[in-house]
Amino acid sequence: MQQNYPIFLASKSPRRREILSIMGLTFTVVSSDADEVTSETEPEKLVEELSLRKALGTRVTDPEAMVIGSDTVVSYAGRILGKPKDEEEAFSMLKMLSGNVSSVYTGVTLFFPYKDKPPVTFHTRTEVVFDTLTDAEILSYIKTGEPMDKAGAYGIQGTFGKHIIEIRGDYYNVMGLPMHDLYKKLKEENIIFI
Amino acid sequence: MQQNYPIFLASKSPRRREILSIMGLTFTVVSSDADEVTSETEPEKLVEELSLRKALGTRVTDPEAMVIGSDTVVSYAGRILGKPKDEEEAFSMLKMLSGNVSSVYTGVTLFFPYKDKPPVTFHTRTEVVFDTLTDAEILSYIKTGEPMDKAGAYGIQGTFGKHIIEIRGDYYNVMGLPMHDLYKKLKEENIIFI
Repeated sequence: MQQNYPIFLASKSPRRREILSIMGLTFTVVSSDADEVTSETEPEKLVEELSLRKALGTRVTDPEAMVIGSDTVVSYAGRILGKPKDEEEAFSMLKMLSGNVSSVYTGVTLFFPYKDKPPVTFHTRTEVVFDTLTDAEILSYIKTGEPMDKAGAYGIQGTFGKHIIEIRGDYYNVMGLPMHDLYKKLKEENIIFI
Repeated sequence: MQQNYPIFLASKSPRRREILSIMGLTFTVVSSDADEVTSETEPEKLVEELSLRKALGTRVTDPEAMVIGSDTVVSYAGRILGKPKDEEEAFSMLKMLSGNVSSVYTGVTLFFPYKDKPPVTFHTRTEVVFDTLTDAEILSYIKTGEPMDKAGAYGIQGTFGKHIIEIRGDYYNVMGLPMHDLYKKLKEENIIFI
């Protein structure tokens, strides 16, 4: 696989870095000063909007740059769950998701700061079926510290996997980046080639 | 999480070891001299039978032992795919799965060599939706060497993930052990408790 652009990832998430590495991409992590406050209530629009803002909020000087911005939320029963503020909120998020089917949405934007090429934004949805968790199981998971930096207060790629009966969609989307849709878009936009 | 039994894993697969570790289990890897030749043609029966044979084929001396045996195959259009014999077979397996929906079956047996307790055997199925792969993409993947020790000639947890549109079921089952069903069974059989 070869790249036509130097890729910049506007994300602090170690999981997104891991996914790009697994895909075989070479990239540089950059920070973004995007405002993440929004009044948007539809999860697919919200993640697309924030992914665009994160990509636009970077300061990359490379004239050839292609910047990836992304945002992930969990949606259940009309509510949007981001990262929990504290352990109590983590508990109530996990209690709410327990025994239910929720959706993970990740929005992704490919942005070309110095090119005559409009940004490309898309989102991917994955359904996640939770087993019923006991309070002891929720508390034991919160003790690991894993919930605190994750949308919906869980990470599918760790010990929490044992509570997930089934997913329907792209596994990596639940981790934070839809590997398949991103790969397809990068090919379509001639950013990578085999 | 605590364990009522010392757990022994009858598998050479580094992925199965990783899954048990992620689950938070303490275990010892043991070899098995099970005969893996079978005339069974139904994937669910085949993986259950081989998981039982692998568990029975170990020589564990701990009187408290609980042994986990398991076997994974890919099933598509009435054919059962194990590990490819060579790169040509890997190519033809991936070419066959390309653009299609196939199933991964993993059989698991919990065996208690010195207890008055019959073995527990079950299987889990996950559907996997492949994108259409070009020959160049298949060859590029074969070059990584990843297909050779994996049923169906691919590993979902690596770079091949970019070719998978969607899974329906337990992701870890595709990796080699159904984390959720295994956790549930270990609780039901009082092997672990929270």
